[in-house]
Amino acid sequence: MRDFLPEETEMMKYIESEARRIAQLYGYGEVITPVLESYKLLAAKAGEEIRSRMYAFKDLGGRRVALRPEFTASVARLVATTLKNEPKPLRLFCVGSLYRYDEPQQGRFREFWQSNYELMGSSKPEADAEIIMVTNSLMKAARLRNCIFKVGHVGVLRGILRQEKIEEKGQNEIMQLMDKKQYNDSLGLVEEAEASKKCLATLQKLVRIKGDKVFEVLKTMKKHVEDYESAVDAVRNLHEILKLVSESGEKINMVVEAGFARGLEYYTGMVFEVYVPEMNIALGGGGRYDKLIELFGGESTAAVGVAHGIDRIMMAMQKQKARPRTEEEKKVMVIPIKEALRGEALKISRMLRDDGIPVEVEVMGRKVTKALEDADRRMMDYAVIVGERELKEEAVVIRNLKRRKQETVKIENMVETIKVKT
Amino acid sequence: MRDFLPEETEMMKYIESEARRIAQLYGYGEVITPVLESYKLLAAKAGEEIRSRMYAFKDLGGRRVALRPEFTASVARLVATTLKNEPKPLRLFCVGSLYRYDEPQQGRFREFWQSNYELMGSSKPEADAEIIMVTNSLMKAARLRNCIFKVGHVGVLRGILRQEKIEEKGQNEIMQLMDKKQYNDSLGLVEEAEASKKCLATLQKLVRIKGDKVFEVLKTMKKHVEDYESAVDAVRNLHEILKLVSESGEKINMVVEAGFARGLEYYTGMVFEVYVPEMNIALGGGGRYDKLIELFGGESTAAVGVAHGIDRIMMAMQKQKARPRTEEEKKVMVIPIKEALRGEALKISRMLRDDGIPVEVEVMGRKVTKALEDADRRMMDYAVIVGERELKEEAVVIRNLKRRKQETVKIENMVETIKVKT
Repeated sequence: MRDFLPEETEMMKYIESEARRIAQLYGYGEVITPVLESYKLLAAKAGEEIRSRMYAFKDLGGRRVALRPEFTASVARLVATTLKNEPKPLRLFCVGSLYRYDEPQQGRFREFWQSNYELMGSSKPEADAEIIMVTNSLMKAARLRNCIFKVGHVGVLRGILRQEKIEEKGQNEIMQLMDKKQYNDSLGLVEEAEASKKCLATLQKLVRIKGDKVFEVLKTMKKHVEDYESAVDAVRNLHEILKLVSESGEKINMVVEAGFARGLEYYTGMVFEVYVPEMNIALGGGGRYDKLIELFGGESTAAVGVAHGIDRIMMAMQKQKARPRTEEEKKVMVIPIKEALRGEALKISRMLRDDGIPVEVEVMGRKVTKALEDADRRMMDYAVIVGERELKEEAVVIRNLKRRKQETVKIENMVETIKVKT
Repeated sequence: MRDFLPEETEMMKYIESEARRIAQLYGYGEVITPVLESYKLLAAKAGEEIRSRMYAFKDLGGRRVALRPEFTASVARLVATTLKNEPKPLRLFCVGSLYRYDEPQQGRFREFWQSNYELMGSSKPEADAEIIMVTNSLMKAARLRNCIFKVGHVGVLRGILRQEKIEEKGQNEIMQLMDKKQYNDSLGLVEEAEASKKCLATLQKLVRIKGDKVFEVLKTMKKHVEDYESAVDAVRNLHEILKLVSESGEKINMVVEAGFARGLEYYTGMVFEVYVPEMNIALGGGGRYDKLIELFGGESTAAVGVAHGIDRIMMAMQKQKARPRTEEEKKVMVIPIKEALRGEALKISRMLRDDGIPVEVEVMGRKVTKALEDADRRMMDYAVIVGERELKEEAVVIRNLKRRKQETVKIENMVETIKVKT
């Protein structure tokens, strides 16, 4: 686990606040759920890989608990309990830290941060389209260039496997291998499950279909799966979603991959991930999971959602040298010329802060020249020097540290002088 | 542990963002440290009460770890290691969740949130004054009324006990009892430690000295401890600090309590807590701890800091019905009159959001009248109805839901119509 020093923390908090702004723009209400939850809840639908890497332990009351490895289980719990009578659609947003005992590697840490958006109660393709648009809005806010959305639909493969009478557990195993591009092992399992020759042939071709001319790719997919009714429906659904995204005018680079399934078992429809060319790890991903709320004891609820890795987005920004929008703020240091004027220095600092100007006040008891050297080193813009003679005339000395000039300014004009001049 | 629904989350995040704004105004750089740290680090100086209530366990690698019960140990670690060569003063800010296995009771939860400010490298009273001012700035930002600062100085009692040759462990036990106002037990321990009669008499009187005429109270304290040199120094130091706060012009209601020591063992100087009359639990507290960085292996570093309970401040705001400053934002729902126009509805939504207007788009496939009923129920201000006829003329229907009037507006004038009209 890592510490973040001020420069990185500023980027992390910038991304978080942009994610929150986007949530507001799209009408998502923010919730906070605990970092620590019941192990049973978190493990219920997490998939074996995540389950085995959870930070699980018994608390002082003997309950088996764990640090959350993802948000979805907690949000599903909330929707199945406290919020179960809320009218639909229900749009929820949350952001915070998550925990997985992975081997640390590029972009993958044991403590990581996500922003998470869930749109519940709608099975319509415009809901799926909205979740993709939300994600693109965040990528734009982070000033990331050349983002690529990898898009698929688990209904295509599931539709085929289901029609071949392969049960869900078998489907999960097969799809997990496909997702890892272990096609031979995956097709081996399909053979073992006594699927038809036609099925094997279809899958063999299907997993290789992908491309960025998305509507053409979808046409090819549809042709290949034409004997599998619900797979055809899935392709049609994905076509509708991507058409809506395109009609929205949101410019998004997409690649459709027929064999793309994502790691988590709970997806039931469209799935997607977003990448930048500089990193081979997804910055965010999500999809549709219409069965999940039921599994947590709630009513059957259509749902689509996405999670974005805040620390990964920060890494991508660093790699692309993307700069967040920041207001140019003047930094000011206030220095009393002697000990007896420390109270006056605090007063001047307070007045500047009341007008929104960031101020560091000298607290080391240094002489003015020493304190000014320090202010220079810290790249401050102004020093306000509090002296006796000037105070008698209700004034202070304002030194422009960049221009190395100073002037005596009435206290009433102090804020104006610092805000206006550059 | 609790969930926070949107209304409360909004308040929590408001307080957090105000705490961050104040950190910027005072020049504190924000850092992020892990929720999970080594047990040994967190337990080192936490005090027995906190130590016994930590969420501790072994991770999958066999390391003994715990959820942080406070920020100070983590920040001290950072200052003693990664930041050890940073020039002083070093101002650090952090905010996040903390964990203690307490019995849940009013204002005390097992997962709670704090904002934390540490000013390191200055032993001067203006540093102590700044920390008190930071805290008052946050109380003002939360719009809390009638805040009371309870202020003391552990150097007064420690000075007496030290001069009586009572060792530090004994001092801690005595002061903890005093802090809980168990004066008889506390003085019993002093007697057992074979302190002088004069000492007992002094302490007996001292612990009862308190009041809001702070400079008078300090004068009384000084008279009572005049035989104990370092206790006199402590009173003098507290006097300087409070004088500087007063000179800053920051209006703060203070009560000085001679017997006030705070729970944590690591304080070495001024200590304080802030309360509102409606709650008997502190909203924040801090003080000086000049030995702590050393104890974590760093160089001897003067330090003063404060932590504020974000969830407690929220409770206080609820009790005082204090409202955060929020911009009045128009809420808009965009409704396509038929399925074929869903893409156009997404496009109109995107255009409004590009101008900063929060938009919920209809995703339930409902008829316009049903969707309008829903928009009414959700207290929205406007509905933008996307129809075929209007689109041909590059227009939409904007319905003012409060006034129940609607008009056809060119798309290019849409944002203006919504932003300007009320």
